Amino acid sequence: MPNPFYDRDIVSIKDFSKADLEFVFSATDKIRAMKPSERGELGKGRTLGYLFYEPSTRTRMSFEAAMASLGGSFIGISELKSSSVEKGESLADTIRIIDLYSDVIVLRHPMDGSSRFAGELSSNPIINAGSGSEEHPTQALLDLYTILKEKGKIDGLSIGIVGDLKYGRTVYSLLYGLANYKVDVHLISPQSLQVRKESIYEIQNKLKVKEHTDLDEVLPKLDVIYVTRIQRERFPDLQEYEKVRGTYTINSATLEKARKDVSIMHPLPRLDEISTSIDGTQNAVYFRQASYGKELRAALLALMLNENPAL
Amino acid sequence: MPNPFYDRDIVSIKDFSKADLEFVFSATDKIRAMKPSERGELGKGRTLGYLFYEPSTRTRMSFEAAMASLGGSFIGISELKSSSVEKGESLADTIRIIDLYSDVIVLRHPMDGSSRFAGELSSNPIINAGSGSEEHPTQALLDLYTILKEKGKIDGLSIGIVGDLKYGRTVYSLLYGLANYKVDVHLISPQSLQVRKESIYEIQNKLKVKEHTDLDEVLPKLDVIYVTRIQRERFPDLQEYEKVRGTYTINSATLEKARKDVSIMHPLPRLDEISTSIDGTQNAVYFRQASYGKELRAALLALMLNENPAL
Amino acid sequence: MPNPFYDRDIVSIKDFSKADLEFVFSATDKIRAMKPSERGELGKGRTLGYLFYEPSTRTRMSFEAAMASLGGSFIGISELKSSSVEKGESLADTIRIIDLYSDVIVLRHPMDGSSRFAGELSSNPIINAGSGSEEHPTQALLDLYTILKEKGKIDGLSIGIVGDLKYGRTVYSLLYGLANYKVDVHLISPQSLQVRKESIYEIQNKLKVKEHTDLDEVLPKLDVIYVTRIQRERFPDLQEYEKVRGTYTINSATLEKARKDVSIMHPLPRLDEISTSIDGTQNAVYFRQASYGKELRAALLALMLNENPAL
Repeated sequence: MPNPFYDRDIVSIKDFSKADLEFVFSATDKIRAMKPSERGELGKGRTLGYLFYEPSTRTRMSFEAAMASLGGSFIGISELKSSSVEKGESLADTIRIIDLYSDVIVLRHPMDGSSRFAGELSSNPIINAGSGSEEHPTQALLDLYTILKEKGKIDGLSIGIVGDLKYGRTVYSLLYGLANYKVDVHLISPQSLQVRKESIYEIQNKLKVKEHTDLDEVLPKLDVIYVTRIQRERFPDLQEYEKVRGTYTINSATLEKARKDVSIMHPLPRLDEISTSIDGTQNAVYFRQASYGKELRAALLALMLNENPAL
Repeated sequence: MPNPFYDRDIVSIKDFSKADLEFVFSATDKIRAMKPSERGELGKGRTLGYLFYEPSTRTRMSFEAAMASLGGSFIGISELKSSSVEKGESLADTIRIIDLYSDVIVLRHPMDGSSRFAGELSSNPIINAGSGSEEHPTQALLDLYTILKEKGKIDGLSIGIVGDLKYGRTVYSLLYGLANYKVDVHLISPQSLQVRKESIYEIQNKLKVKEHTDLDEVLPKLDVIYVTRIQRERFPDLQEYEKVRGTYTINSATLEKARKDVSIMHPLPRLDEISTSIDGTQNAVYFRQASYGKELRAALLALMLNENPAL
Repeated sequence: MPNPFYDRDIVSIKDFSKADLEFVFSATDKIRAMKPSERGELGKGRTLGYLFYEPSTRTRMSFEAAMASLGGSFIGISELKSSSVEKGESLADTIRIIDLYSDVIVLRHPMDGSSRFAGELSSNPIINAGSGSEEHPTQALLDLYTILKEKGKIDGLSIGIVGDLKYGRTVYSLLYGLANYKVDVHLISPQSLQVRKESIYEIQNKLKVKEHTDLDEVLPKLDVIYVTRIQRERFPDLQEYEKVRGTYTINSATLEKARKDVSIMHPLPRLDEISTSIDGTQNAVYFRQASYGKELRAALLALMLNENPAL
């Protein structure tokens, strides 16, 4: 199979087939097995240009670390106030310039469609590092890769997604990614933070999806619990927030009621939705997940920048 | 001819002879023809240190991308608030330190004379990336290089410079650079934003310069139109601003009245002084100009850092 | 002697024996004698991750320049407002993530014990780049190395430390470092800014320490004067501040009353506690000190990252 990522924009997880996903997963396996000196040849002399219109230290550093491990460089803007953006420059012009200065662009932008738009303008390939309310394709890729590595497979699993399912863009990207597999998905959230109906509609023919407000009712079935942050600002009533917050916190008591080998995932940063008391358990996958993320991004960049990178 | 840029400060475009300009233009041609792996040897193990006392994302990224393409590193300060500068450190001390940490310094500073001052303090060569009201020598070099590449020559051309000619430092640097060539220069601006008389005086023996307030009157003669941003803040009367703004906007109607092969240039970022409707035309040179800029800066850095860089 | 720094945390200068200090000093000598191409192999493919919870442009750039000179990369957070830290993430989680993204961590944090804590969490070695009120071990190492290079020895010297001895963390680290040598230490400060008694207690069995309020009374004896910044904010009474400031300023008059070969040191940035009029004298060691600092940090990083780096 020829490299499906060479010189290609990564805008939405929906743009990729199951074979594409497996291609980048296999490349990630190979890059993890490589010696640093070999990896360091894959991005040599290449520059990643990033534009973060929303802050995201973690995602930015993950891409920087990935590019550094390939021997490449990175430049960009992560702070809007000091940039030409403040002088009123359009997104289109900013994209065109970073395109001239780099070999691959990483863009985070609050608007839906921003990455598709950027991809059409730029001659070099673009990676959507989060746009609008739904898309964060590399997060979905690393989430799927994490499940694969931790469970040995994705098909046949019961996957619970817990927390703020309405506003978290990682949730939607993950769901669209999971739609390539045969999994049972359990969505657990307060009524007011349920997944948007139009998004459920899109995936319900492909995935078995059930919605819950009570985590305990489904907990014993789950192979994976994917936890997301619930933001206080979302609740008009602080009392309701406190109740919800207590209900969905993952701690030792949760683990006792769960499958022994349940994997707890989180896109990070976490606040208190996962108790630090379980950090030392084998169930706590969230830090390994971040590590897989760096490796998967390195593999993806290597595939985008090189036609036949021996991955 | 020995490399006239090796270990030399780039403070003012006035410091360079026509032969010097041609030397760096020829080096830029060569660096553009090089393979990435060859280029990547020219700055290997070398560090560019930058100090931006005024924000300039574009110029900073252009230098970073240039240095990265030579295989070098870059460090520096672009945000004053988090730096020792806020603790009250003098410019002289800050220059001395960055000098110890790097091999070449890129400085932007609001004061005239700052770069000359810095060049005298530092043991490594310095590049003025914009100082005071007049100097931005690498912008002038890349502007001249752009004209040369787009028109095949500089001598004999009619060059219009439009917009805020009073406050734009790129205008002055470009005029001083053009003074090395036989060109007709047309300065088009509102009365209140004309080029400062003392600067005209300096170049009028070398250049044929004419001033206009009406673009249309000279438009058909121009080979190149160099557009600059007009800032609303400059006008006490908003109505006058709106009038001026309308008059000098470059759009399809402008192109119809102009020479068919007219080249539209702009130091960027642009607001609405150039309509995006002409972006797709061959006359729109401003993005290629930014690209030439990165390449010229790479060539210049290579010449400054290496005595005989095979360029 | 095997490399005592390989994969080891650098938390406190107190953790190191005199033999350890001499090991890194000797490695610094060797790294300074190396060709850039040789140095550039020592950090190739390795990434330094930094976390600055307090601003420090100078220390950050010194580490970046050091890492760049080894051929390595650097990523990190120096501006809290744009980071996940603002979303309320714990120090522990932030450390764990940067640990996954890099090979060595550089941490500056206002709390005592932060680096020890971070070192226990991270799998990669950590460098304390300033924590709490007392620890800044690499500053102490570079201060000691500077004394050694400038005076040819440390034992037997009379060393004066002048200024704000109460709040300056470099003072404490230097004192703990000097405790490995046979030196006379003279502490010169206003009453209100004397070294904290509990810290004196800890070192008084190892060092001969005398306290003074008057610099002139001890000036002729000193081989080294280590000057620190006195911050106006420390004084409730502005008049007292003005008096103190005048008393401790090092200028040409000071040098006349001092030993001819006295070395003036300063961790920088300086304000007016050292007059720029002495910058050109052989006694002004503070800029060379910054340069030694970069080299010592490069040596230290090379030793931490490589078991047998031929240093």
